[in-house]
Amino acid sequence: MAKIEYEPYRSLIYVDCAKEEYRHKLQYWLYSQHIPDSIAKFDPWCTKYAFYNALPVPPEGERFGTVRMQMTEHYWMCNPCSPESEINTLYEVFPPEALVWQGLVPDQFSGERAVSVEGATEEVKENSFEAPSLAWAFLPIFWENDLKGKGRTIKDGPNYRWQFMIAYPENVEKEEGDRWMMEEILPKFAKMPEVNRILTSKIIKEVNHGHYDRLVEMWFDGPEEWYKCAVEGMKNMEKPAWGECERFPFLKPSINIASIFISDLVTSDNLRSYRGYIPMR
Amino acid sequence: MAKIEYEPYRSLIYVDCAKEEYRHKLQYWLYSQHIPDSIAKFDPWCTKYAFYNALPVPPEGERFGTVRMQMTEHYWMCNPCSPESEINTLYEVFPPEALVWQGLVPDQFSGERAVSVEGATEEVKENSFEAPSLAWAFLPIFWENDLKGKGRTIKDGPNYRWQFMIAYPENVEKEEGDRWMMEEILPKFAKMPEVNRILTSKIIKEVNHGHYDRLVEMWFDGPEEWYKCAVEGMKNMEKPAWGECERFPFLKPSINIASIFISDLVTSDNLRSYRGYIPMR
Amino acid sequence: MAKIEYEPYRSLIYVDCAKEEYRHKLQYWLYSQHIPDSIAKFDPWCTKYAFYNALPVPPEGERFGTVRMQMTEHYWMCNPCSPESEINTLYEVFPPEALVWQGLVPDQFSGERAVSVEGATEEVKENSFEAPSLAWAFLPIFWENDLKGKGRTIKDGPNYRWQFMIAYPENVEKEEGDRWMMEEILPKFAKMPEVNRILTSKIIKEVNHGHYDRLVEMWFDGPEEWYKCAVEGMKNMEKPAWGECERFPFLKPSINIASIFISDLVTSDNLRSYRGYIPMR
Amino acid sequence: MAKIEYEPYRSLIYVDCAKEEYRHKLQYWLYSQHIPDSIAKFDPWCTKYAFYNALPVPPEGERFGTVRMQMTEHYWMCNPCSPESEINTLYEVFPPEALVWQGLVPDQFSGERAVSVEGATEEVKENSFEAPSLAWAFLPIFWENDLKGKGRTIKDGPNYRWQFMIAYPENVEKEEGDRWMMEEILPKFAKMPEVNRILTSKIIKEVNHGHYDRLVEMWFDGPEEWYKCAVEGMKNMEKPAWGECERFPFLKPSINIASIFISDLVTSDNLRSYRGYIPMR
Amino acid sequence: MAKIEYEPYRSLIYVDCAKEEYRHKLQYWLYSQHIPDSIAKFDPWCTKYAFYNALPVPPEGERFGTVRMQMTEHYWMCNPCSPESEINTLYEVFPPEALVWQGLVPDQFSGERAVSVEGATEEVKENSFEAPSLAWAFLPIFWENDLKGKGRTIKDGPNYRWQFMIAYPENVEKEEGDRWMMEEILPKFAKMPEVNRILTSKIIKEVNHGHYDRLVEMWFDGPEEWYKCAVEGMKNMEKPAWGECERFPFLKPSINIASIFISDLVTSDNLRSYRGYIPMR
Amino acid sequence: MAKIEYEPYRSLIYVDCAKEEYRHKLQYWLYSQHIPDSIAKFDPWCTKYAFYNALPVPPEGERFGTVRMQMTEHYWMCNPCSPESEINTLYEVFPPEALVWQGLVPDQFSGERAVSVEGATEEVKENSFEAPSLAWAFLPIFWENDLKGKGRTIKDGPNYRWQFMIAYPENVEKEEGDRWMMEEILPKFAKMPEVNRILTSKIIKEVNHGHYDRLVEMWFDGPEEWYKCAVEGMKNMEKPAWGECERFPFLKPSINIASIFISDLVTSDNLRSYRGYIPMR
Repeated sequence: MAKIEYEPYRSLIYVDCAKEEYRHKLQYWLYSQHIPDSIAKFDPWCTKYAFYNALPVPPEGERFGTVRMQMTEHYWMCNPCSPESEINTLYEVFPPEALVWQGLVPDQFSGERAVSVEGATEEVKENSFEAPSLAWAFLPIFWENDLKGKGRTIKDGPNYRWQFMIAYPENVEKEEGDRWMMEEILPKFAKMPEVNRILTSKIIKEVNHGHYDRLVEMWFDGPEEWYKCAVEGMKNMEKPAWGECERFPFLKPSINIASIFISDLVTSDNLRSYRGYIPMR
Repeated sequence: MAKIEYEPYRSLIYVDCAKEEYRHKLQYWLYSQHIPDSIAKFDPWCTKYAFYNALPVPPEGERFGTVRMQMTEHYWMCNPCSPESEINTLYEVFPPEALVWQGLVPDQFSGERAVSVEGATEEVKENSFEAPSLAWAFLPIFWENDLKGKGRTIKDGPNYRWQFMIAYPENVEKEEGDRWMMEEILPKFAKMPEVNRILTSKIIKEVNHGHYDRLVEMWFDGPEEWYKCAVEGMKNMEKPAWGECERFPFLKPSINIASIFISDLVTSDNLRSYRGYIPMR
Repeated sequence: MAKIEYEPYRSLIYVDCAKEEYRHKLQYWLYSQHIPDSIAKFDPWCTKYAFYNALPVPPEGERFGTVRMQMTEHYWMCNPCSPESEINTLYEVFPPEALVWQGLVPDQFSGERAVSVEGATEEVKENSFEAPSLAWAFLPIFWENDLKGKGRTIKDGPNYRWQFMIAYPENVEKEEGDRWMMEEILPKFAKMPEVNRILTSKIIKEVNHGHYDRLVEMWFDGPEEWYKCAVEGMKNMEKPAWGECERFPFLKPSINIASIFISDLVTSDNLRSYRGYIPMR
Repeated sequence: MAKIEYEPYRSLIYVDCAKEEYRHKLQYWLYSQHIPDSIAKFDPWCTKYAFYNALPVPPEGERFGTVRMQMTEHYWMCNPCSPESEINTLYEVFPPEALVWQGLVPDQFSGERAVSVEGATEEVKENSFEAPSLAWAFLPIFWENDLKGKGRTIKDGPNYRWQFMIAYPENVEKEEGDRWMMEEILPKFAKMPEVNRILTSKIIKEVNHGHYDRLVEMWFDGPEEWYKCAVEGMKNMEKPAWGECERFPFLKPSINIASIFISDLVTSDNLRSYRGYIPMR
Repeated sequence: MAKIEYEPYRSLIYVDCAKEEYRHKLQYWLYSQHIPDSIAKFDPWCTKYAFYNALPVPPEGERFGTVRMQMTEHYWMCNPCSPESEINTLYEVFPPEALVWQGLVPDQFSGERAVSVEGATEEVKENSFEAPSLAWAFLPIFWENDLKGKGRTIKDGPNYRWQFMIAYPENVEKEEGDRWMMEEILPKFAKMPEVNRILTSKIIKEVNHGHYDRLVEMWFDGPEEWYKCAVEGMKNMEKPAWGECERFPFLKPSINIASIFISDLVTSDNLRSYRGYIPMR
Repeated sequence: MAKIEYEPYRSLIYVDCAKEEYRHKLQYWLYSQHIPDSIAKFDPWCTKYAFYNALPVPPEGERFGTVRMQMTEHYWMCNPCSPESEINTLYEVFPPEALVWQGLVPDQFSGERAVSVEGATEEVKENSFEAPSLAWAFLPIFWENDLKGKGRTIKDGPNYRWQFMIAYPENVEKEEGDRWMMEEILPKFAKMPEVNRILTSKIIKEVNHGHYDRLVEMWFDGPEEWYKCAVEGMKNMEKPAWGECERFPFLKPSINIASIFISDLVTSDNLRSYRGYIPMR
């Protein structure tokens, strides 16, 4: 058995809620089953495990691949994707519907309920579904680049955080894609007065063979300021040769860009605060 | 000084978020300032203090006076509105903007930010704002009437809970209004197969001189089922003589009816789980 | 709806484990389902909810009606058996097998597993099972009588606690039965040097229409000392006219006497320490 | 057994540390033994149990009977001094030296260590020791009189709190003494700009047959402001006919006046935060 | 001083209770003294510290060296047996009787109580006592071999876990002994339908110079199923040449095999849930 | 970005309180702002974060550079002073007055309040202030040298701990200074019967480029015993050639020696017990 090394990582998962019919079901599974399953599995080598509720999608947020449920964050002491870590006494309960609720498979794959889409044949529906890329990224425990707003404290006010992962499409070199992001896109945002803070790190893709290449976090006073910058401010941005869509961010939503809007508030710091699933009276 | 008697109550407050620009600001004040202020004030005679996040407003939910932030719940050992309870060493920090964020006063009353409404004069704006009734109700600690679904357990699945408070308008006797609700409306809902559970209690108005008369909680599998019942199922309901609006619930939203949609999940059980305001890294 | 009065009670339930095949099943239901179900139901008016593991049954402990699982203890602020308290949104999950696991119904009543008793017909089995009396007693929150050992502290050493409930049989007046216990039995124990502590209270039967009449708690250094007192020391005790059995305690085990042996240790203080059901890795 | 009534009280104990040789010993007993002993005893009917460390005694604080260890605070649901509450299974470990450490008995009464006072004979020492009055007061859970600073919040800055209990000497009618405090002393303080807040309540003496008559809490920015008010500002105050000392507060320190200086900070909220006695590595 | 490396380990200790007279004494020492002593010592480099109560010994469990108290589990970030880790400010309180209570030394070595063994002289008793091997094993934090039941979740039902450590006797090569276990014994168990799960790891003997060689965990529905497999199912197993006993497991109980039966339930997760030793009222 | 290595450290900060006017202000900032700021920043790679209140300065404690507020202790998993760790989303709120409160800058540098020093010109004041050396030391997680009292347990009684950091002055070689401490000073203390325990480690200066060279912890029964040893017992100690002061410890207080007196009690174990800043009612 290979020696287990100290490999600290932060990992982030963007969790979507495919429609409102599923939100409380996804919640129920996450809070009553998945949190204790997860703690049981990795408590001794995980140092933080938290949920952050997604804020509502702002106008035009859809084309940034914005998810509607939550961001799940872990900090690890060692690699949770090593072959060694795959042997566990108890496995996580993962109902197939949980994939439907998250929008990772289309409704008709679910054993639980047939979702009727009027006039659509089975074949059409299957064909019309493009599975989103799994928005699960490993990162260094510290941010790599602090591009704007260094020194901000919580006393400077609550933050409307836009966090996104991007993958550069196959028709562009990763280096070229990243140059575009780091030298054209982010500096442009950095100049906008409504942008309070920008941080970014390269995603460590080899841990989980992840799809996405880079993570960016940008802070605003609120969704109006975000709109002013990300939608209006980028309106005249030139589409790169390899762009997939006509408008910024020029990437296929949920395929090559995934976003979440969150506040500073930790919804559930699972290792510290979880007290079981005790429903409302 | 009057003797403090044992007077157990449950009290509920429906908190709205006037627009998305305010959600994280309201959150920040609630979680960083208001929870500790409140615990400091009433910890020794309050037995539960919890927040329940509002689920997104379902289609046509607006005309039921649906709030968008949270339900705040307290259980009290003694009357928190007695003259005795009003003397405290420290008072709660209550920024005037918090009223704006909750939609209780219009934006222009806020010292924090001027909200521009194009072409509107100050007078117009003031006139155009009708303050919502304060949705704060005192209740017995046990539900009074169990109208449908007795015996349901958490194993029967997660619940999409619609909770609402109604006040009967001035042009109808309270008894007559209540007869209508208890003998016409709720029995009609009780017959619908999508309604899993109905509970209701009379609001104890004398504690806080509250506006609302009755609280109802009804459970569905999800918002689609709610829509089928509360919108479609009540479409042909006859408007009572004293009705204020053309369609069910025939009451002015946020004035004589206030609703919230919640799941079983307690977002923050403040007396048990609060650990201070520790923001996301 | 009747006014809810302050009625502080302590209530105790002796939980048996019918055989070792059931212990971990009963545990799983209690810790994964029943604790959160219970907290959800009564958190705001219950002030303590704890489990105390039963110590193993000492030699000859069976004829004292000794249970093998745990003692469940609640402290209440108001009557949990009032008609008002019976209306709840969510009910407790109570699998029928849980009654079998506790020995309250015979195995064949369980839907889960048929327990084969060789050669026995259904009728015979039913007849051969005498259901134990439900060992659930309400008590004042303070002990009524302190008969020996007042002033003992935890520094005097860990205690082997024998706690028992007795019901006086139908063929004796309650007063006469209680006189016998208070004036003959307990004083005799009080004189034995191995008995470190005796406390007793009358059971408040009207709350839950309970079967048992009196609760006694007696402390020893260990099971050998208990044996010396309760078995050997009572050997020559004269059987009362109304006695049901030949030997002390002269009562039918599990019918008119129920015992438990516990230490000072609280196994699970559910309102304070419950963190969900997180199994061993 | 008498019915246990709902009788909410707050009770305060001022704990002194007779000399620095004792502080860590008193701490060790309080935190390792007394907290768990106390929680075990009253957890189900006590709603708050907290320690507040005394700030260092300010210049001339001694003549106000200032204690040097801590204030112990309880909130009760029912009378903890009733005859019923005196029967407990386990009693608190109370080493005789703990009285010496607190200055309640002189050193030579301690079995633990002989404290040498040079040249003093046993008789002299005994005579020279005047035991302080036990500074243990029961109060309503709400303050009775709010004399200055209503509306102050934690955002107005941290508070240097002077809290004191006074007993009117035997040679003055209680009513007359209280008139002097309420109509002469406190109004005089209320006029001083350095006094930020004044609250006071009559002590409920019948619960524990306590010595002290009235509790006052007064807030300053710090000890310099306190000195300016309580020492300099009261310098010319006329001694009442029944005064015991020449200078304000005209009462024998630790006999008829006991003080403590505390901040807003709760040092140990024992029911919520106690985690056992885990010493520094 | 040597650099402290990241060396993650799981370590397990099987704790026996020599007789019932000792169970509550061992409990008292473990919970009131040993837990806080231990946390104080290793809190900053230990990531989990938990107790799992032993289930009662099943029929014929004795010859598998079954312990009767608990399993103590630690997860370490660095080697707790390094010379560096041996310097501590405070050492653990370890009363000599604690060894007697655990059956590690015979009763007569205890200063606390003389245990009478009729007719035995001091010399005989000493000679008749064979100290059990210390059942303390270091393991990788992940199981090495998953031999049966991969994918099982907590929803598949509660587990009756048999965990054992074996040491191959001196008269057999370690490799040969391990071949026997891995290729003959465990595969035989894996074929039995009552065996739900098998996992095993080699013990890392060099950390603590431990006695045992391999750890195995096997899950059943309950003790009857265990009996059917481990006793009846192995009845015809051939004794290996180096076997020490006539029947399976062919090893001297408590010398070369130590077992414990546990459920999934963590009795006390000491780093997360310990709240001090607060005895039952 | 450099790989983050496992580098376990303990770090200690001695925090002074420049005068009593500041104690509650420093407390308020530390407990309401600095703890949550800090937890947010380093929770995932810090394993312990605790405050230990300073005991009052004993007679003549000033010339040992004794601080009056607290010792702040961290245990780290990786280097908190690496360039990588300096990029954070949110920075700590650090009001300039906090430096004044701690005595790190003179009062007049504070923007909050002008401290009047009569007759002093700005220049004089600046010149008269010698900033103390920052008493912040990194240490191995285990003590390096155990010089006296090995084996002491908490049952041996509460400890009066004197902990100090020393820096050898510029006019002496570090090796020579350390030889003096290790071979002359500490052995002399080790021979004194009032000294119960001595431990020492070399400070790891390269982590934070710290000023101090060595940390020593010495335990006594109380401040009288400390005085007997550190003041009286060292009275005749010869001043080394490089000594800066006439009397032991021959070092400039707060410049080359910093001390704190603490007990075993952890005042606030911030990662485990922090529950937000909930002030006294």
